[in-house]
Amino acid sequence: MQTKAVKAFGAAAADAQLQQMSIQRRTPTPHDVEIEILYCGVCHSDLHTARNEWHGTIYPCVPGHEIVGRVVSVGSHVTKFKPGDMAAVGCLVDSCRECEYCKEGLEQYCEPGHTQTYNAPDKHLGKQTFGGYSESIVVTEGFVLRVPENLDLAAVAPLLCAGITTYSPLKHWNVGPGKKVGIVGIGGLGHMGVKLAKAMGAEVIVFTTSPSKVADAKRLGADDVVLSTDEAQMAKYAGKLHFVIDAVSAAHNINAYLNLLRIDGSLALVGAPEHPLKVEAFSLIPYRRSFAGSMIGGIAETQEMLDFCGKHNIVSDIEMINIQQINEAYERLLKGDVKYRFVINMASLKK
Amino acid sequence: MQTKAVKAFGAAAADAQLQQMSIQRRTPTPHDVEIEILYCGVCHSDLHTARNEWHGTIYPCVPGHEIVGRVVSVGSHVTKFKPGDMAAVGCLVDSCRECEYCKEGLEQYCEPGHTQTYNAPDKHLGKQTFGGYSESIVVTEGFVLRVPENLDLAAVAPLLCAGITTYSPLKHWNVGPGKKVGIVGIGGLGHMGVKLAKAMGAEVIVFTTSPSKVADAKRLGADDVVLSTDEAQMAKYAGKLHFVIDAVSAAHNINAYLNLLRIDGSLALVGAPEHPLKVEAFSLIPYRRSFAGSMIGGIAETQEMLDFCGKHNIVSDIEMINIQQINEAYERLLKGDVKYRFVINMASLKK
Repeated sequence: MQTKAVKAFGAAAADAQLQQMSIQRRTPTPHDVEIEILYCGVCHSDLHTARNEWHGTIYPCVPGHEIVGRVVSVGSHVTKFKPGDMAAVGCLVDSCRECEYCKEGLEQYCEPGHTQTYNAPDKHLGKQTFGGYSESIVVTEGFVLRVPENLDLAAVAPLLCAGITTYSPLKHWNVGPGKKVGIVGIGGLGHMGVKLAKAMGAEVIVFTTSPSKVADAKRLGADDVVLSTDEAQMAKYAGKLHFVIDAVSAAHNINAYLNLLRIDGSLALVGAPEHPLKVEAFSLIPYRRSFAGSMIGGIAETQEMLDFCGKHNIVSDIEMINIQQINEAYERLLKGDVKYRFVINMASLKK
Repeated sequence: MQTKAVKAFGAAAADAQLQQMSIQRRTPTPHDVEIEILYCGVCHSDLHTARNEWHGTIYPCVPGHEIVGRVVSVGSHVTKFKPGDMAAVGCLVDSCRECEYCKEGLEQYCEPGHTQTYNAPDKHLGKQTFGGYSESIVVTEGFVLRVPENLDLAAVAPLLCAGITTYSPLKHWNVGPGKKVGIVGIGGLGHMGVKLAKAMGAEVIVFTTSPSKVADAKRLGADDVVLSTDEAQMAKYAGKLHFVIDAVSAAHNINAYLNLLRIDGSLALVGAPEHPLKVEAFSLIPYRRSFAGSMIGGIAETQEMLDFCGKHNIVSDIEMINIQQINEAYERLLKGDVKYRFVINMASLKK
């Protein structure tokens, strides 16, 4: 298969700083869309993978799965995109397309396993897939998304992971008018959860350990903000919430949040704490509560989310950086020092 | 309020053996049903409460919430029962009857708090409620259940707790034909779960750590039995089950069972392990799994369960004892040495 060398930014080893490198992209097949990457969001997963914190990283590793850009060429069978169109790519670039789950549009749960945008086996070139910290990407048409024209393109990028990761559970658990929804943790995921749940018509209560985030959570749309370190404030919502999204990746007492749920309520974990969470039987048994998980979303649902954001004028709050600042951005990410998502201006890679 | 002294068997202190004692029962009010207790099942909760293992036990403590007997008198406003009828009482003898949950028939989740059959504040006499290890009980009509005539009365008793505790989640999570259901742990609860899930039309897979229970699980109706200590056998069902009931009260690795669930599957905990269960984020996030809890059932649902058991000829597998053997039975219960529920022949209390 023919390939082309493109500039990228990646890690050569777990303990290496990210630096400029050259990677190969395939020449578009008849079903492929070639995209010049304009902006790429920085997800905590990028850092986990670059540093092999989840194990299994194949080096060199080029992260990035919050990709927006411009179509530069399309294969002969491509019908939905033409050169010049704006396009987006999220966490998945392929799946088996044949299993029960793929057929239901649940590619994120593909049974034999989907192809993630980076650090997954590349079906075409045989090595690992490379993500959006690069000049361009070639993706099969079915996994390329349309971008609403009215939104700021750079601030759309984080919707491709942080947006869909919160949108999908909010939809799945029927969040809407009349529902009280808790969002635990205000970071890249949590701040999208607040905006999306509010746009869906729910009453949104934010739970944070940071007094400094109270005013900002209200600005994002929260109806109420609870300092989770204050037992009296927590007690106010005990047994009152229909649904909770828990977007905290650090160790935390999950029982305090399970106890907020009313009957048949679910708490969906979208952050992925490294160590197991300790769940008390009596956090679940009364009120028939559920502690659930949720992983990104399917392709059709990701398009639905982008269209919903276009309609409601929702984008991420971002801080733009150049690719040369990525190592520094990772350090700030570890400290939670970003409101609320770094987005790389990929023009900086051309310098 | 007038009362009558009746014989009972109870614990005077956490470290005391159960022994015969005298308790007071109220004279039936216009809405009450007075029942002569014929059989009472022995639930692990009885032991936990008698020994103050869940704390909060008020002494003297008379356990027992799997009660069947004969109506001996009824108040002037009682319409559903008459003297001579067979009747049953489960874990609840009252609730607020006014909250949102009570109105929906979910008295088990009554918001201000229901009245449990024993060790709860007695609305009438002011002290604690006394359970079924006694000659008779007086219960408000709305919390008394009808018993199907075709079933063995002694073997009906465990349906009032073990039966409804497994029936309610099986119904709530839509178990029926075409569904693969796992039952973890074959004891008082688990053996009822197997019988009920099978009668509902599901494919039932039992998970046990005891090779000695394999044949018996099949006799109870299991389509397959998996030794949960055997990784290869466990792998066969990874991601395959629609629903799992976990009836294990001891510490165990919950992740091994969460991993059996297919997409949107739930595992409902009905046992209550003393220590928190450690849940890995990646046991829940893939396949959008839920780790849920469930607590007994409402009054209408308990009647529905009894009627279902009547229709399908389902009762508990029991070992009958006299009340004088209760302390010995508790010791055997701790060793899991019962197939599968002790039931006290309350005639023995009259000796």
